[in-house]
Amino acid sequence: MNETGKAIQSIEWREDHVRIIDQTFLPGRTVYCDIRDVGQMWDAIKKLKVRGAPAIGIAAAYAFYLGIKDIRDISYSGFSIEVDRIAQYLASSRPTAVNLQWALDRIQSTIHALREKPIDEIKDTVLQLAKTIHEEDKRICKNIGLNGQELIPDTANILTHCNTGGLATGQYGTALSMIYHAHEAGKKIHIWVDETRPLLQGSRLTAWELTSAGIPMQLVIDSAAGHLMKSGKVDLIVVGTDRVAANGDTANKIGTYSLSVLAKEHNIPFYVAAPLSSIDTAIKTGDEIPIEERDGEEITNIGSSRIAPKKVDTYNPAFDVTPAKNITAFITEKGIVKQPFTTGIAKLFS
Amino acid sequence: MNETGKAIQSIEWREDHVRIIDQTFLPGRTVYCDIRDVGQMWDAIKKLKVRGAPAIGIAAAYAFYLGIKDIRDISYSGFSIEVDRIAQYLASSRPTAVNLQWALDRIQSTIHALREKPIDEIKDTVLQLAKTIHEEDKRICKNIGLNGQELIPDTANILTHCNTGGLATGQYGTALSMIYHAHEAGKKIHIWVDETRPLLQGSRLTAWELTSAGIPMQLVIDSAAGHLMKSGKVDLIVVGTDRVAANGDTANKIGTYSLSVLAKEHNIPFYVAAPLSSIDTAIKTGDEIPIEERDGEEITNIGSSRIAPKKVDTYNPAFDVTPAKNITAFITEKGIVKQPFTTGIAKLFS
Repeated sequence: MNETGKAIQSIEWREDHVRIIDQTFLPGRTVYCDIRDVGQMWDAIKKLKVRGAPAIGIAAAYAFYLGIKDIRDISYSGFSIEVDRIAQYLASSRPTAVNLQWALDRIQSTIHALREKPIDEIKDTVLQLAKTIHEEDKRICKNIGLNGQELIPDTANILTHCNTGGLATGQYGTALSMIYHAHEAGKKIHIWVDETRPLLQGSRLTAWELTSAGIPMQLVIDSAAGHLMKSGKVDLIVVGTDRVAANGDTANKIGTYSLSVLAKEHNIPFYVAAPLSSIDTAIKTGDEIPIEERDGEEITNIGSSRIAPKKVDTYNPAFDVTPAKNITAFITEKGIVKQPFTTGIAKLFS
Repeated sequence: MNETGKAIQSIEWREDHVRIIDQTFLPGRTVYCDIRDVGQMWDAIKKLKVRGAPAIGIAAAYAFYLGIKDIRDISYSGFSIEVDRIAQYLASSRPTAVNLQWALDRIQSTIHALREKPIDEIKDTVLQLAKTIHEEDKRICKNIGLNGQELIPDTANILTHCNTGGLATGQYGTALSMIYHAHEAGKKIHIWVDETRPLLQGSRLTAWELTSAGIPMQLVIDSAAGHLMKSGKVDLIVVGTDRVAANGDTANKIGTYSLSVLAKEHNIPFYVAAPLSSIDTAIKTGDEIPIEERDGEEITNIGSSRIAPKKVDTYNPAFDVTPAKNITAFITEKGIVKQPFTTGIAKLFS
């Protein structure tokens, strides 16, 4: 485990400021960055020092408080103008991040609801709300981790893909939360970490999280997974998700679908850790989920190295869709959902 | 096609010297290197300027001639001492390369068989033999390419893994030979090139060969293959091999097995291009093929970039074994072999 004896916390409130892990230095160096004003946090979000949808929402919530805490001797209407300005400013750091906007909206509406209260009381409430948003996310992640324990034997080789850990969330993560909690429960687990091309979230982030936490792991290339399964070296697979449809079809990092087919071939359980916020019941099946194509330079360049011919054509889909039939179960903060998923998922929201 | 209108030739005899493509500059720059003495070739093999088992054998054969051609006014016994010295010297450039030793042995035994002939005649015969070794390899590769044509439709999206092309052989390659010949025959083909982690032979070498030859292609990460197949974008898969067992089980670059499982799931033909020299009938099944594990730095470092934490544990198998049942057919220089492979392979050698 790391120095605190807990899973990695990428964001921490420290009396009067926020301490984040600057993820741009990972995995080379673990650099903590103390953020004391809203401009610093804008910069940190913009430059991906803090990343991962839930983590960005939490960071922005604390930054909102940092933005308002030193405003003094002002009427509510003057204060309100400042509040709207800060919300707009923070939203501009990652314009497409859903959790960022969600956190900012939640704080703004709370402030306006308290308009009759003294400014100092409003400020205190905002800090309290930021801590609540942080705690809520930790609790969701923790519950996913705890709920998943019945699926992890006392001794297990677990394969995972991409980064679904504490770096991207308030603490623990989603799929990695199951792994952290299995380790904390004293289970003898060993993790196969897919490097996760092209952006290498597995080697850069997951490997860093697990080695920091002292959890036994080995890094492998993505295409070694089949050989590992065939050799009897994988007992279960657990991944996260970007979006789950009402029928259980699941979009996740490119490569997840291949893993699900290989798991089926070898009768290995294939689990998806999914907070309710990632389940989109408005979407009936995976066919409706658009697949983002990203820049080919993610494939042709690594760091300062060019690894392909200059004029080469590429195809770089960022996600794929795993059909519900290849998934053994979903692990949510409200419990485990097994087949048939359409019924089970509907129940989560009833 | 490239400037000669033919598939890449990595080695060429030019009147009195050998011209090779210096593969250490690929894919950044195409640098030709003229080799005029045996020491230069030793260096070129040692430093991987020329690589690929058949290509090394050919290069060494020409180098043998370069080593003896200027020896004058000498008795056969003096000449013979020089010959043995050159053979030993060249063998030391890549001590474990089977084709290197095979080519050197073949030349040495030819020289000693001609001991009664004038030295000049022996020299001429050695050059002739080097050219023969080169031509034999080209013919084998060409025949694999031609024999495979009946399996490639007039319009096809073909997925391939690793580098099996002209760079590694006398010309054309094995799996890539089928692709070069389909293109030369005017078929409308489009190639999906797996980048092939960890050493990226797909992005560095295959992508370079195909773009140089003007064959339409797109580079993808290895774990995009499942998504491509599910989307109906792959009509057939063709790979090379390092070793085929008597029953058809096939060792090849890590990731090949996963592709074969995905091909089966999507009813996509899965072909293996295999010169007879790669079929080892002394081995009954793939269980007897040892899997080489290579240094973890191949995963944790790319060029000058470190992409994983410093003390991370790794597992880096270089090959995997695809069971015969996942293979649709083998393409050899003596024809296509279909199921049942045990019978078909035995016939090749009868």
